[in-house]
Amino acid sequence: MKAYVYVSLKKSVLDPQGKTIHGALTKIGYKSLQEVRQGKYFEITLNGGVSKEEAQAEVERIAREVLTNPVIEEFRFSLED
Amino acid sequence: MKAYVYVSLKKSVLDPQGKTIHGALTKIGYKSLQEVRQGKYFEITLNGGVSKEEAQAEVERIAREVLTNPVIEEFRFSLED
Repeated sequence: MKAYVYVSLKKSVLDPQGKTIHGALTKIGYKSLQEVRQGKYFEITLNGGVSKEEAQAEVERIAREVLTNPVIEEFRFSLED
Repeated sequence: MKAYVYVSLKKSVLDPQGKTIHGALTKIGYKSLQEVRQGKYFEITLNGGVSKEEAQAEVERIAREVLTNPVIEEFRFSLED
């Protein structure tokens, strides 16, 4: 089973890295962009014997406690067989 | 309109960062993981006047030419109104 975890900065937190990418893209001619924000993305492969419910619980705990800094970041995740 | 671009290392490329995260997670007790791979994630907000087809083309070009290193990385993206 595979899990995909997406970690991004909270809306209220400034994202200087995204701003830099936005600036660079605008400079090289991509004019139709309003905002760019960058986040992290994790692809987690779980062992075969794990049930969907266990996987859900485990991945959520990992995302909340390890992969995300709750002060400035938020996460979402999805599972796939 | 919003676009989400996911950039990850090709399957054939070693991911030492993911391996380190996997090792750390295993050490603190998460035993059911087989593999962890890390990638990047971009959230792009486009200007209002852009059609879905234009957005699709523009975002794909940005992802292919700027956000991804084609030698070691691959990307996928999705659009959302």
